Amino acid sequence: MGMTMAEKIIARAANKREVKPGEFVWANVDTAMMDDLLGPRVVIAEHIKRLGNQIWDKEKVVIISDHYSPAANITQAEILQFTRNWAKEYGISKYYEGLGPCHQVLAEKGFDIPGTLMVGTDSHTTTAGAFGCFGTGIGSTEMLGVLVSGQIWLRVPETMLFVWHGKLQKGVYAKDIILRTIKEIGQAGATYKVMEFAGSCIENLSVDERMAITNMAVEAGAKTGLMAPDNKVFAYLESIGAPKGTPMYSDPDAEYAQKFEFNADTLVPQIALPHEVDKVVDITEAEGEVIHQAYLGSCTNGRYPDLVEAAKILKGRKVHPDVRLLVSPASRSIYHRAVREGIIEILSDAGAMILAPSCGACLGLHSGILARGERAISSTNRNFVGRMGHKEAEIFLASPASVAAAAIEGKITDPRKYL
Amino acid sequence: MGMTMAEKIIARAANKREVKPGEFVWANVDTAMMDDLLGPRVVIAEHIKRLGNQIWDKEKVVIISDHYSPAANITQAEILQFTRNWAKEYGISKYYEGLGPCHQVLAEKGFDIPGTLMVGTDSHTTTAGAFGCFGTGIGSTEMLGVLVSGQIWLRVPETMLFVWHGKLQKGVYAKDIILRTIKEIGQAGATYKVMEFAGSCIENLSVDERMAITNMAVEAGAKTGLMAPDNKVFAYLESIGAPKGTPMYSDPDAEYAQKFEFNADTLVPQIALPHEVDKVVDITEAEGEVIHQAYLGSCTNGRYPDLVEAAKILKGRKVHPDVRLLVSPASRSIYHRAVREGIIEILSDAGAMILAPSCGACLGLHSGILARGERAISSTNRNFVGRMGHKEAEIFLASPASVAAAAIEGKITDPRKYL
Repeated sequence: MGMTMAEKIIARAANKREVKPGEFVWANVDTAMMDDLLGPRVVIAEHIKRLGNQIWDKEKVVIISDHYSPAANITQAEILQFTRNWAKEYGISKYYEGLGPCHQVLAEKGFDIPGTLMVGTDSHTTTAGAFGCFGTGIGSTEMLGVLVSGQIWLRVPETMLFVWHGKLQKGVYAKDIILRTIKEIGQAGATYKVMEFAGSCIENLSVDERMAITNMAVEAGAKTGLMAPDNKVFAYLESIGAPKGTPMYSDPDAEYAQKFEFNADTLVPQIALPHEVDKVVDITEAEGEVIHQAYLGSCTNGRYPDLVEAAKILKGRKVHPDVRLLVSPASRSIYHRAVREGIIEILSDAGAMILAPSCGACLGLHSGILARGERAISSTNRNFVGRMGHKEAEIFLASPASVAAAAIEGKITDPRKYL
Repeated sequence: MGMTMAEKIIARAANKREVKPGEFVWANVDTAMMDDLLGPRVVIAEHIKRLGNQIWDKEKVVIISDHYSPAANITQAEILQFTRNWAKEYGISKYYEGLGPCHQVLAEKGFDIPGTLMVGTDSHTTTAGAFGCFGTGIGSTEMLGVLVSGQIWLRVPETMLFVWHGKLQKGVYAKDIILRTIKEIGQAGATYKVMEFAGSCIENLSVDERMAITNMAVEAGAKTGLMAPDNKVFAYLESIGAPKGTPMYSDPDAEYAQKFEFNADTLVPQIALPHEVDKVVDITEAEGEVIHQAYLGSCTNGRYPDLVEAAKILKGRKVHPDVRLLVSPASRSIYHRAVREGIIEILSDAGAMILAPSCGACLGLHSGILARGERAISSTNRNFVGRMGHKEAEIFLASPASVAAAAIEGKITDPRKYL
C-alpha cells in the first residue's frame, strides 16, 4: 500500500520506512517557530530552566514577533521586549521583528522546505504546506518539549484529498477555493486530518495563491494542508537561496480517508458570513450588506498578487466615504515591491490607509479594531465573535477583490463587475 | 504706537481698530477645529443640546480624527465611531479621518489662512502661525462656547520677538532652532505670550520647516507662534486653492515684551534630554546615549523635507539591529509624495517600519509604545515622563536627521557626519 505525502514526511521525520494513520510516532522537528503571542513568554521561559536550560538546536529555532508589533500599549511593548531579550539570551539568531506575519516571513526566509516537519505556536503554520512542508500549530507547552528534545509526539493523521479541476474564472481566487472547500466539509470537517490539495486548478496557481489555501486548512480543523511541491516551488526556493529539501509526493495507490472533487470553472466568488468560517455562500447572496471597514492583509491574503488584484479594482476609484479601507501587506518585502510598482500609491490614492505589516487587526490586537455594531469585510481567516474587536461587531471573509469592491460601494458586492 | 501681528489679528477678530496687551476682548473665531481626543466626546456632545443644540457656523467647524486612528482597541474604535457619527449628526461636512495629524491636515485643506483666528482642541494648534494665522489650543469647555457663539474671550497677549539671523549649516534644521529657542527662555518662558519669529534665517526656511517651529511654540507656554506670511506662504495657499486671507504684519514700532537675537551660522544640532523640553544641549554632549527606538513623524517633524533628510542619511545604510525605526508621515499626501519619489523605499530598505499617518506613538496611544527601561529618540514635541509609554522610559527630542543617525548607530550621535 502506498503512502500519502503527509505520511511520507512523518515517516522521514520519525526515521521509519513506513507509517500508517493512527500510529503514534516520535518525530524529529526540522523547524520550531515561536511568535510573540504564544512564544517564550507563555510557559516556555518559566520552565525551560527546570528542564536543563538547553535548546536542542538553536539553528532550528525561529522567533518571529508579528502580533504585537508595532506595540499598541505598554503590555504589548513589554511582551516584545521580553521576546527580543529571550531570543538574545538563548542565542536564537533567527529572530525577526516587524517584518510581518510569521507565516509569510518563514516562507521568505527559506524555512518552508519540502519534505520537512515544521511546528509553530500559531495555528496557521499549516501555510507551509503550500511548499510540501508539513507545518502544524502546537501549543506553548508542546513547544517547550520540542525546544528541549527536538522531538514531538504525533499520531499519524489520515489524509483527505481535495481535487480541484478546471480553471478559475476572472474575479474568482484561491480564497474562494478554500472557502468553498470549508463550506463542503464544515469547520470541523478535517479535524486532525491532513487536507491534501491537488488537481490542475491548484497546479495553475502561483505559490503565493496556494498559501492562501493551506493557510486556512486549519479552519476546517486540519493538522496541516499539503500540496505537491513543483517547479514553481523549487524556482521560488532557488530565488531566495533556500534548499530544495526532500520533496515528497503521494503514491498513486495512497489511501485517503475521503476524496472530494470540485470544478473551478463554475466557482463564483464566495463569502463567509458572521460568525463562522463555514457559513459560506455565493457572494451574490450577501450583496447589499452594509460594511464599515474593509481589511486587506494577513498571512492569508496580504501577499503581492492580493494587493495587485485589489489595486486593479481600486485604480481611479475612491473608497466609499463611510468605509475605512485598511491595507497591511503580509511582509516588508511585499510592501517594498508594491511601493516600487506603484500598487501602494493606487491603493492609497483610492483612500486606503496603509498599515505596517503585522497581525494586528486580524485578531483584534491593534491597528484597526471594530467598535460595537460595526461590520467588516476582511481578507483574513477568521470571523469569530469578537475576533477583530467588539463582540457585537460582524465580520465577512472574502477575497481581496471582494474586499476592494465592497470598500468602493460601502456594501458587499460581486467583485466581477469591476474586472 | 504700532501693533504686532498678533495684536492686529486679534483686533480684526474683535472688530476693533486697535487692541493692547492685557486688554480683554471677545473675538470672532474663523476656524474651530476639534480632534477625536478632546473633541465632541468631551463635554461638548453632552452640553451642546442644553445650549440650544445649534452650531454657530458649520462651515467654520473642522473635525479631524487623528489620535485614535487606526484604532488600537475597542475604546479607541468607539471614540472614532462617536466622533464620526457626531460630525454627521451635526452636519459638519469638514470631517477628516485617517489622513494624519490635524495640524498638517488643516494646512493641506487650506484652513491656515493669514490674518485669521483659529482655535483647536489640541495644544499644537500654534502650528498655523507659520501661515500668519493666530492658531491656539483651547479646552473642550471653551470649544463648547465657541461652537455655540462663534466667539472666544481673550486677553490680548504680549508678544516676544525672536530674530534668527544667518543661515543654518548642513545638518542643522528648524527643529534645532526651536529647541535652542526654548532652551533660552525655558518651558514656561513664553507663558500666555506670543512668540513671533523673524529674521533672514526664518525667511529662508520653507513653509514646512517653519511649521516645526511654530508647532513647538506651545512647548514654551506660548499662546501662539507667529511668522510673517510671505510669498512662499501665498504660493502654497494658491497651489491648494486656499484664500490668501488678510495678511498681517507687525509694525516697525510695535512693542514687544522681550526681544531675542540668535545667529544660525553657529547653531549646532540640539537635543532635548529626558524629561523636559527645555533640557536642551548640543547633541555632541549626549553622544553615545543608547536608544532602542527612533521615531520619525508627528505634526512637528513628519513632513516631506523631514523624510527626505532622514532618507539622505539612511540611504544604503541599515538601522542598528537593536533599534526599531518607526516612520509615520505627517499626512497621507506627504506619504504619497514620499512613495512616488522613492523616499519611502529608501527608509524601508534601511529597516524602517512605515506606519500610517497618525498621532499614535507621539503621545503613547498606539503604534510604537515604549516598554519599561526603553529609550527613544524622537522627532516629536514632548519628552515628558510617560509620554510615549512606560513612565520609566526616556525620550530624547531632536531633528529627523539626528533621529536617522541615531537609528543607524543605536546611540545618539552627531548627524553631520552622515551628510
